[in-house]
Amino acid sequence: MSTTIDIPESSKVAKGKAVAVAPPRPGGWKKGVAIMDFILRLGAIAAALGAAATMGTSDQTLPFFTQFFQFEASYDSFTTFQFFVITMALVGGYLVLSLPFSVVAIIRPHAVGPRLFLIILDTVFLTLATASAASAAAIVYLAHNGDQDTNWLAICNQFGDFCAQTSSAVVSSFVAVVVFVLLIVMSALAIGKP
Amino acid sequence: MSTTIDIPESSKVAKGKAVAVAPPRPGGWKKGVAIMDFILRLGAIAAALGAAATMGTSDQTLPFFTQFFQFEASYDSFTTFQFFVITMALVGGYLVLSLPFSVVAIIRPHAVGPRLFLIILDTVFLTLATASAASAAAIVYLAHNGDQDTNWLAICNQFGDFCAQTSSAVVSSFVAVVVFVLLIVMSALAIGKP
Repeated sequence: MSTTIDIPESSKVAKGKAVAVAPPRPGGWKKGVAIMDFILRLGAIAAALGAAATMGTSDQTLPFFTQFFQFEASYDSFTTFQFFVITMALVGGYLVLSLPFSVVAIIRPHAVGPRLFLIILDTVFLTLATASAASAAAIVYLAHNGDQDTNWLAICNQFGDFCAQTSSAVVSSFVAVVVFVLLIVMSALAIGKP
Repeated sequence: MSTTIDIPESSKVAKGKAVAVAPPRPGGWKKGVAIMDFILRLGAIAAALGAAATMGTSDQTLPFFTQFFQFEASYDSFTTFQFFVITMALVGGYLVLSLPFSVVAIIRPHAVGPRLFLIILDTVFLTLATASAASAAAIVYLAHNGDQDTNWLAICNQFGDFCAQTSSAVVSSFVAVVVFVLLIVMSALAIGKP
């Protein structure tokens, strides 16, 4: 009887020792990368949705008007700004939907599947976000500086508030773009390194 | 003497058999991906440098002029188009310099290093290419359609050749953007899958 009791005890101790002595599994930093990924996504959500909201609410009516015409500028005035609002809302929506996959990457830091899925979709939405941010930046630049050769006059002297609001939306969208680049680089490193 | 000759012979045969019987190493498709990567890069070089050259040579002078002014449109007229030319030349230069790394990936399809290096730089230059393509597209759109609220007139009625040339440069740059997205997705799959 005494021997049968002794054997499981000693095997338990051996198991405990084996776990304690075993070298740490390589790639423990991947969990940290996954957590960083999640936090960066939260920041990008704020930047993208903030950009969409700021642009979408930009609207300025000048306090003077002629008999036939009232001077008004809103994001509706430019097709590019409409594109910007729609795209940034889409990017924000994608980022919200991508959060569960980021959580899976935190729980299972060594799984390649979720990261691969995220890196591919991130690339697509990075392109979308960059396209809308850059095209809106081009229009904002024109609104500030105008263009001599084509006789397009700068409108920011009149529509100061409108210009300030659209400019801040563009800056916010570029923050989202930078975060996307970081997310892709981090995912690539987490997949590639052991 | 005969036994000493026999022993190395039998060991050689055993070695040869072991190699022949061994199952094929997984991931043989990675070489194909690497070759595809190289070909796509060549296409992207053509697209990027073609876009830069097309935009850089866009220049149209109207056949009538006043006493003080001659009507001329060139890529110099728009800061965005100057940015486009510089950026596309940079992207083309990067793609040329990236070819050796793509060749390394063909020779050693299972090496992670070169692919990781390429995926990170590709992401950065994808952002650059998309930004310049989209901002130029916004200006080309304005040149075609004008904007009522800000009284920016469409110039493509007068500068038809200029508009056609800049439009084709923009299309060519978007080809480069699509190729970049494909390159990143392919590299990610090649790194992630066994």
